[in-house]
Amino acid sequence: MDGPLPVSCDPLTALFKRVRARTEALAAGLSDADATVQSMEDASPAKWHLAHTSWFFETMVLARHVPGYRPFDPAFDFLFNSYYETIGPRLSRPRRGMLTRPCLATVLAYRQHVTKAVADLMGTRMPDGVASLVELGCHHEQQHQELLLTDILHLFAQNPLAPAFRTPPGALPAIPDRPAAMGFIAFDGGVIRIGHAGGGFAFDCEGPRHEVLIQPFRLADRLVTNAEWLDFIADGGYRTPLLWLSDGWARAQAEGWSAPLYWQRRNDGFVSMTLQGLRPVDPAAPVTHISYFEADAFATWAGRRLPGEAEWEHAAGTLAIDGQAAGQGNFADSGRLAPAPASPAGGLRQMFGDVWEWTRSAFLPYPRFCPPAGAVGEYNGKFMSGQFVLRGGSCATPAGHVRASYRNFFPPHARWQFSGLRLAEDA
Amino acid sequence: MDGPLPVSCDPLTALFKRVRARTEALAAGLSDADATVQSMEDASPAKWHLAHTSWFFETMVLARHVPGYRPFDPAFDFLFNSYYETIGPRLSRPRRGMLTRPCLATVLAYRQHVTKAVADLMGTRMPDGVASLVELGCHHEQQHQELLLTDILHLFAQNPLAPAFRTPPGALPAIPDRPAAMGFIAFDGGVIRIGHAGGGFAFDCEGPRHEVLIQPFRLADRLVTNAEWLDFIADGGYRTPLLWLSDGWARAQAEGWSAPLYWQRRNDGFVSMTLQGLRPVDPAAPVTHISYFEADAFATWAGRRLPGEAEWEHAAGTLAIDGQAAGQGNFADSGRLAPAPASPAGGLRQMFGDVWEWTRSAFLPYPRFCPPAGAVGEYNGKFMSGQFVLRGGSCATPAGHVRASYRNFFPPHARWQFSGLRLAEDA
Amino acid sequence: MDGPLPVSCDPLTALFKRVRARTEALAAGLSDADATVQSMEDASPAKWHLAHTSWFFETMVLARHVPGYRPFDPAFDFLFNSYYETIGPRLSRPRRGMLTRPCLATVLAYRQHVTKAVADLMGTRMPDGVASLVELGCHHEQQHQELLLTDILHLFAQNPLAPAFRTPPGALPAIPDRPAAMGFIAFDGGVIRIGHAGGGFAFDCEGPRHEVLIQPFRLADRLVTNAEWLDFIADGGYRTPLLWLSDGWARAQAEGWSAPLYWQRRNDGFVSMTLQGLRPVDPAAPVTHISYFEADAFATWAGRRLPGEAEWEHAAGTLAIDGQAAGQGNFADSGRLAPAPASPAGGLRQMFGDVWEWTRSAFLPYPRFCPPAGAVGEYNGKFMSGQFVLRGGSCATPAGHVRASYRNFFPPHARWQFSGLRLAEDA
Amino acid sequence: MDGPLPVSCDPLTALFKRVRARTEALAAGLSDADATVQSMEDASPAKWHLAHTSWFFETMVLARHVPGYRPFDPAFDFLFNSYYETIGPRLSRPRRGMLTRPCLATVLAYRQHVTKAVADLMGTRMPDGVASLVELGCHHEQQHQELLLTDILHLFAQNPLAPAFRTPPGALPAIPDRPAAMGFIAFDGGVIRIGHAGGGFAFDCEGPRHEVLIQPFRLADRLVTNAEWLDFIADGGYRTPLLWLSDGWARAQAEGWSAPLYWQRRNDGFVSMTLQGLRPVDPAAPVTHISYFEADAFATWAGRRLPGEAEWEHAAGTLAIDGQAAGQGNFADSGRLAPAPASPAGGLRQMFGDVWEWTRSAFLPYPRFCPPAGAVGEYNGKFMSGQFVLRGGSCATPAGHVRASYRNFFPPHARWQFSGLRLAEDA
Ligand SMILES: [Fe+3]
Ligand SMILES: [Fe+3]
Ligand SMILES: [Fe+3]
Ligand SMILES: [Fe+3]
Repeated sequence: MDGPLPVSCDPLTALFKRVRARTEALAAGLSDADATVQSMEDASPAKWHLAHTSWFFETMVLARHVPGYRPFDPAFDFLFNSYYETIGPRLSRPRRGMLTRPCLATVLAYRQHVTKAVADLMGTRMPDGVASLVELGCHHEQQHQELLLTDILHLFAQNPLAPAFRTPPGALPAIPDRPAAMGFIAFDGGVIRIGHAGGGFAFDCEGPRHEVLIQPFRLADRLVTNAEWLDFIADGGYRTPLLWLSDGWARAQAEGWSAPLYWQRRNDGFVSMTLQGLRPVDPAAPVTHISYFEADAFATWAGRRLPGEAEWEHAAGTLAIDGQAAGQGNFADSGRLAPAPASPAGGLRQMFGDVWEWTRSAFLPYPRFCPPAGAVGEYNGKFMSGQFVLRGGSCATPAGHVRASYRNFFPPHARWQFSGLRLAEDA
Repeated sequence: MDGPLPVSCDPLTALFKRVRARTEALAAGLSDADATVQSMEDASPAKWHLAHTSWFFETMVLARHVPGYRPFDPAFDFLFNSYYETIGPRLSRPRRGMLTRPCLATVLAYRQHVTKAVADLMGTRMPDGVASLVELGCHHEQQHQELLLTDILHLFAQNPLAPAFRTPPGALPAIPDRPAAMGFIAFDGGVIRIGHAGGGFAFDCEGPRHEVLIQPFRLADRLVTNAEWLDFIADGGYRTPLLWLSDGWARAQAEGWSAPLYWQRRNDGFVSMTLQGLRPVDPAAPVTHISYFEADAFATWAGRRLPGEAEWEHAAGTLAIDGQAAGQGNFADSGRLAPAPASPAGGLRQMFGDVWEWTRSAFLPYPRFCPPAGAVGEYNGKFMSGQFVLRGGSCATPAGHVRASYRNFFPPHARWQFSGLRLAEDA
Repeated sequence: MDGPLPVSCDPLTALFKRVRARTEALAAGLSDADATVQSMEDASPAKWHLAHTSWFFETMVLARHVPGYRPFDPAFDFLFNSYYETIGPRLSRPRRGMLTRPCLATVLAYRQHVTKAVADLMGTRMPDGVASLVELGCHHEQQHQELLLTDILHLFAQNPLAPAFRTPPGALPAIPDRPAAMGFIAFDGGVIRIGHAGGGFAFDCEGPRHEVLIQPFRLADRLVTNAEWLDFIADGGYRTPLLWLSDGWARAQAEGWSAPLYWQRRNDGFVSMTLQGLRPVDPAAPVTHISYFEADAFATWAGRRLPGEAEWEHAAGTLAIDGQAAGQGNFADSGRLAPAPASPAGGLRQMFGDVWEWTRSAFLPYPRFCPPAGAVGEYNGKFMSGQFVLRGGSCATPAGHVRASYRNFFPPHARWQFSGLRLAEDA
Repeated sequence: MDGPLPVSCDPLTALFKRVRARTEALAAGLSDADATVQSMEDASPAKWHLAHTSWFFETMVLARHVPGYRPFDPAFDFLFNSYYETIGPRLSRPRRGMLTRPCLATVLAYRQHVTKAVADLMGTRMPDGVASLVELGCHHEQQHQELLLTDILHLFAQNPLAPAFRTPPGALPAIPDRPAAMGFIAFDGGVIRIGHAGGGFAFDCEGPRHEVLIQPFRLADRLVTNAEWLDFIADGGYRTPLLWLSDGWARAQAEGWSAPLYWQRRNDGFVSMTLQGLRPVDPAAPVTHISYFEADAFATWAGRRLPGEAEWEHAAGTLAIDGQAAGQGNFADSGRLAPAPASPAGGLRQMFGDVWEWTRSAFLPYPRFCPPAGAVGEYNGKFMSGQFVLRGGSCATPAGHVRASYRNFFPPHARWQFSGLRLAEDA
């Protein structure tokens, strides 16, 4: 796909081309049918992700900044607008799975059309503000890359055949034994600064950078493992209401939770649906596909608590994000597409990659937060109720996408993301 | 597909091969995605229809009567069992649309495998009772051919692009002007016999043949047209509760009915989603995609009533089913795939084909009805509550499938079938 | 309450006064709160029954036939109209339990007001047709007397305290041992006449009287007992899908049915909530509070079937309805308010009273049925879909209310009425 | 009711007796039926509030600290436990309205029994910790006093007769004209301390007292009025999705919001259901019965924001809570039972009383929050997800119950409380 595009040294152009190609590479193994079905209201079809990310460029960039631009198909504006009231009416979310047409090939042609038009535009002297819209579109598309993976996993998990999305690429790093006991690293309290500091891209909700006052605390040096989660189950964690938030207990009862989403009990232990199909649960790997409610109940059971987002960001401060040697950075690009056990290296590990970490912070605006003008102002701000912040990225997050200041958010009952937890405690 | 099978003069073998090939021909234009999505709980994906009709032969015939038969894929027994408790657990109906795998090509290979194995069996001296199971399987598959069409129409109607399933095959017969006024044909009362008389195939619920006492009545000589339905709408039919059954009014309000399913109001009249895409409503054609509730309200508005199933069967008595010259027999094989205006010939027209006709008879067992032993005993008997009988077949019914004694049945709110009405009155 | 009314020898006046007084006597033990709460959408509060039956007289008789009549409270027209579209808007059914005002005393005063006004009218020379409206109002009120009992039982059954509505009035007839084995009585087939023959009151749906053709059949000489139902349970009746209609099995699973409504399993057997509070299940008494689905499954399990309504009416033909000596007639007036074991007398017993008997006939119009003009035309006709006919009356039916031609009807899942079954078989 | 209790100078005993008597005085005008019906899942019947507040004393105090205490009725433990998993099983919340028995008189006798037993205990030398449980029980009961009012209002609002709970006690203060324009009062930023400082009662969630860092801000000197809300409506506030949080817009559409709960549009303006029945909307009074979603949309429309709870508490700091002269303190004890217009005095008015003020703070634990041991540990902590904090008390809050540190909380869609808003902005 990169072929027809001119070689570019411009970092934004390079990012754009890499991201566009990467999305298509991710979807490469999917059939038209795989890419079409919507397995639940919260998930979207892969084809929809492929098209919507193109619609974003077409609507936000091309339609506004390319004189005489002709849309690939005028009907797509209705089909692939996600939630932008500024832009117009749209297909309701639960009906995204009705779109057996356009077919996957047409959507891929739509992508080519948009990619070419944006690349052409980038080859010109772009009007003010357009570059930042393209940059936003790239990061937007990376978010949908992750959702494409989590949504396909959810779809395949509904299929009694339990199909594998990927087979691991050759020999993966050997899985160590059960990792060493969890350690806690102490941090001082005081007035700190959080939020994006400028320099590089960030979403609106990551700023403004501002001061917060935190108390001294300790943060676990690794994620909670499946082995520890099995202890929680064995100790009646899913049967003890006193460990749970009230809404969490109600949800767990209504939906019959007795283990993380995708786990299935077998005579000799648990297996779990993964992007590699049904696999035995690895005791050494971080637990994933748990809700905030489960994370909070586990922390209560463990006599600890979840970290606040300011604490997490403060602790993450200067870590190398992609330092796999130092125990960070199991992102989607590695091809593992599953959380990995903590490196034996010690120190603060697994802060980036592996699983998103639930914090006990509600997703709310930072002081003086003000959404940007125009349609992109709907990007994050209107979701600031009913959700909790997660930090750090996961094994399905594109490398280079996450930051210490990055704020992901989901409702407390959501389980289909690669979400896990790290314990904290007051010092 | 017929190629590798031996030529056969045996009528059952010929039926079998024709039916199997016909199903595949119907599905020929569908993509893997089209064939996979389930648009509502009552509808099934085309791929599921393709596989389930093969499962029926595999389970009812091959697994029991071919020594050492190896199923194509043992997992399919769970995936493609519709509702046979005798046979075992199955995928719940609302989840049929989750099966992006097996892909369409695999399902077609499954069909070939089963077709070949049944054909091989038919080339041998079949055990007693097997021929009648194969015959049942053929008629079962014809029922699913019709459902494949109605379910695809429902799916495509959910798509804002309103794709066409078929374009009409060349020049169709010209559409006449609004047909002549509805006439009524009188029938005497008395003790008559209804139910299948033997000689040829029938489903269990069509018998036993038995006597019923009917009163003198008159039956309309053609179906109710769209033009007449437009009068009903214009006269406030959908806004007048006194015309409606109580459950019907409640349903109509809850779902906002103001016209037949698939009609959309435009400034200059109505268009309707059809198997040929969005088309203007033809005033001369029979109304279709209406519920029993709507049919009954229309009849009340018209000062008439719906026929009883015994009246209908009695009137149909000796009509040629497939006499298109005489105004019968617009079935699926004609390729029109839409109800057609009544022939100007006069007489009792459109009794077979065009649209299924709602009767005011509940679907209940005939006197001394007894379901057959074994799994096929679940075929019809267990659905004998909450449904009304429809008669006569539709433009989506395979030619040769319907009979005067044929009893179709749906709940009174169902609208996605090609269902319409014919008026009756007491003499 | 009868005090201020003039003594009357007119049978209709006597009926009117008896019915009005009886309703109040039934409600006598209820508190304002008991009379106000609605325990489910299908049930109505006792206060609502008390008021609605008065509204019926006020609207159908007084407002139309008493010049210058002033309604007791104009707001009541909205509050106490049940379902008459002809008359106007009304409180939606599920909100009947919100009416803590008017209080019970005001509703009783409303009753007095209406009773007096109707009685005054009856003391004059009434306009044509008014007498039959008053008669209809009396029978209407008797229907609500029964519903008042079944609805209070449902309400009290929701209360963990299990209050008793009545204590039995002194010594009841001793309960015999388990009744003798069920016998079957043979009836010839042929053309018979059913429907109300004229002479006395009947509801519109009981006519027109007409001929039907029936086949020879046999009818059980008593109702199915709790002992027989316990055998059904013990034999896995509630766990065997092959015994059930498809809709019935789905409902039974969704709602977790494992015994009749109101039964609770104890270590030493079953108790049941009754109008006398929690009582041990009497093995000799007829089973009650079962749905059509359960009745049908039981009949299948027993190798029999349910009777058709024509068969039932034919068999009931000349039985004395209130002949308690001959095993009929355990109605509400006896004060037992519970089904009683069959008399040992033999012969066709328990046809009237004890429990309503599910038939396998859908509630549909008789040939040439035509609802009367005006609001009373909404009485029965608009409910002719989705329901099955029950015959014979129950222990909660007022004595004198039921007839051989009487057609009661409920949806097949309804369980809160005193509904049971009698077996039939083909001869 | 105070009669039989010994006169007491002990402040806790006085509080106890005053609170108990006050609850009964509030319920004095309710019939048994009024006190029994549950109008929605979130609301409870008055009778249940009366009993549950007694159950709290019986379970937490009497059963544990009075040797040989005999419960009034052992069944009440199941009926009147609200949500304490520590204590045992309980009637599910949506079934609280099924309790027509025990009757209101019995519940009042239950209250007397408990009041006497607690008072007797308080006359002795109480074990350690018991006094604080009694104090908690008093404040708990005050919370239920407020809910009793809001729940009765909700119930009466469902009744087409719109009954009045109270008529205003004689002449109320005259209603001024539309108040002067909203002013804003500036506050400095910095590290401040919030949370209960000790000295007097507080709920667990109000502590620990701790430091927070706030930015400079301005706070409106009065509440938003109905006149201002009418401007919001007139300007399309309920039809403009860009003003709304995404979840809020979805809820508003699903439930058809177009004005505050209880408002009804008339030809000449709005009326509102109130505790005094249907009354014209007073333009000068604070808007109430709005959700967080509406409050947030209004603030966005007004170019402002909601205050954070720390800002609010900081601003409230030293205000006299009950200084009606200075524009504070319209609590339930005044008898107005409706929000009142702001005093013309100027300054920071209506901080306490009138309406609860939505803040933009999620209800989350303060740093180092730890619920107390035992059943009372379930009081607040388990509700710390999915809710927003409200501050300041309302016209239905008992005088003396609220504090600057008091944290009330409800989900963002809740509307049936006396909830309104005050604007804030960044300085
Ligand atoms: Fe997006
Ligand atoms: Fe089938
Ligand atoms: Fe009625
Ligand atoms: Fe409480």
